[in-house]
Amino acid sequence: MTVRQLSMPELADACGQLGITHVGLWREPVQAYGLQATAELVRDAGLTVTTLCRGGFLTAIDPKERAGAMEDNRRAVDEAATLGTSVLVLVSGGLPTGSRDLHGARERIADALGELGPYAEERGVKLAIEPLHPMYASDRCVVSTLAQALDLAERFPARQVGVAVDTYHVWWDDTAPAQIARAGAAGRIHTFQLADWTTPLPQGVLTGRGQLGDGAVDLREWQGYVEAAGYTGAIEVELFNDGLWARDGREVLAETAGRFLEHVVR
Amino acid sequence: MTVRQLSMPELADACGQLGITHVGLWREPVQAYGLQATAELVRDAGLTVTTLCRGGFLTAIDPKERAGAMEDNRRAVDEAATLGTSVLVLVSGGLPTGSRDLHGARERIADALGELGPYAEERGVKLAIEPLHPMYASDRCVVSTLAQALDLAERFPARQVGVAVDTYHVWWDDTAPAQIARAGAAGRIHTFQLADWTTPLPQGVLTGRGQLGDGAVDLREWQGYVEAAGYTGAIEVELFNDGLWARDGREVLAETAGRFLEHVVR
Repeated sequence: MTVRQLSMPELADACGQLGITHVGLWREPVQAYGLQATAELVRDAGLTVTTLCRGGFLTAIDPKERAGAMEDNRRAVDEAATLGTSVLVLVSGGLPTGSRDLHGARERIADALGELGPYAEERGVKLAIEPLHPMYASDRCVVSTLAQALDLAERFPARQVGVAVDTYHVWWDDTAPAQIARAGAAGRIHTFQLADWTTPLPQGVLTGRGQLGDGAVDLREWQGYVEAAGYTGAIEVELFNDGLWARDGREVLAETAGRFLEHVVR
Repeated sequence: MTVRQLSMPELADACGQLGITHVGLWREPVQAYGLQATAELVRDAGLTVTTLCRGGFLTAIDPKERAGAMEDNRRAVDEAATLGTSVLVLVSGGLPTGSRDLHGARERIADALGELGPYAEERGVKLAIEPLHPMYASDRCVVSTLAQALDLAERFPARQVGVAVDTYHVWWDDTAPAQIARAGAAGRIHTFQLADWTTPLPQGVLTGRGQLGDGAVDLREWQGYVEAAGYTGAIEVELFNDGLWARDGREVLAETAGRFLEHVVR
């Protein structure tokens, strides 16, 4: 999504040019290019798919809406398995229209995970609950902190449910380092994602994630926390940024790789 | 600030018409009308000033900038005393330009409180650290949760330093109810403020606080938490909202009073 302006073949080619061997994918562009076609493309390009984003939106009260969400999440698990990734990232969903019950919404997520976890495990896929920044709590994700995400995940085996640690969402939280240790000790860090925090936030606050090094986040500090917690998986860069999307995608990918070397690699 | 389109005399008159006997003031409009003039106006109108907003911005590293902030905060304490309110609300300040050190910024706030607390106590004023929503952590307030605010406040006597509980900033936080109990047990809830949470957030995320009842916050639930914690002080409504500011101020004040009766008063 950092370079969504690139088509799938352009992305695969640009990764090859830059020596990037791992890529995180989102469902929409995969579906647009075709699931089987994408699986073949990344395999032929020698690319490993780190995670698939995203399942989730599991907070509906309405039974029909809820059944639809479960069906869509089973499809997302199938897609992850087809792409050869072992991690499906979940954005849990916001409050249903008219509801003010955060606790109830979180419990409905737990109910859903009880069904989806075994389904995913049978297909070699782990679910990663991603706590989103509290500014998304009402309309996108009622899971706002790593502590909440782990409280949910720990009801299930680590091979089924863990968490996604994204610096953009947790950087402000002084309790997050201890929660990363808690997650790591249980083998529940299923992915680690980077974005920087820059202001002013844009209208709707969805497309203002900062390029690495442009903002307030000490990325190496957070990398240190996940490493100390035993995480050895891929480090993803996930930027939703209108400014980056408006530029040449290959140039943005090269810049991002450069920033990664400058601000993350030790 | 909810009805900043009203002049001070218009505000006093509108409060009288609606039977509102308590009002929270901001420094800028007080200074614009004149400190002494405002003090006389509210006294003559029989209005009690609940709090003065705001001191703070105590995170500067530069010594000159820091000295200026301390001087400004002493002035704010003096203004609060002149207005007859016992509470000065503090918005602690964001990260200095180029800094990524949240912990260091919070420690500089503590240093400043060590000086300002006794100064305020001598003048009959208590300082209220207001944790702001984590979306303001970089540029406005590095104190993002009630737990962080209390960790700071508890280094000082409760008669000097406490916290401001504002639903807009804490509603998403499932640990906040326990922190309210912690604050109340120590006599550290120095004010309780209401605003609702509505989306989409506007560009810059400063002026989108929702009218009571329009959003995701169960206001009575939060009122219950502060009451259970022993809080018996005023309940303030603090809305920064472009839509409300564009309307007739008396109409907005009447509407807000009505919403207060509908969504808060039991």
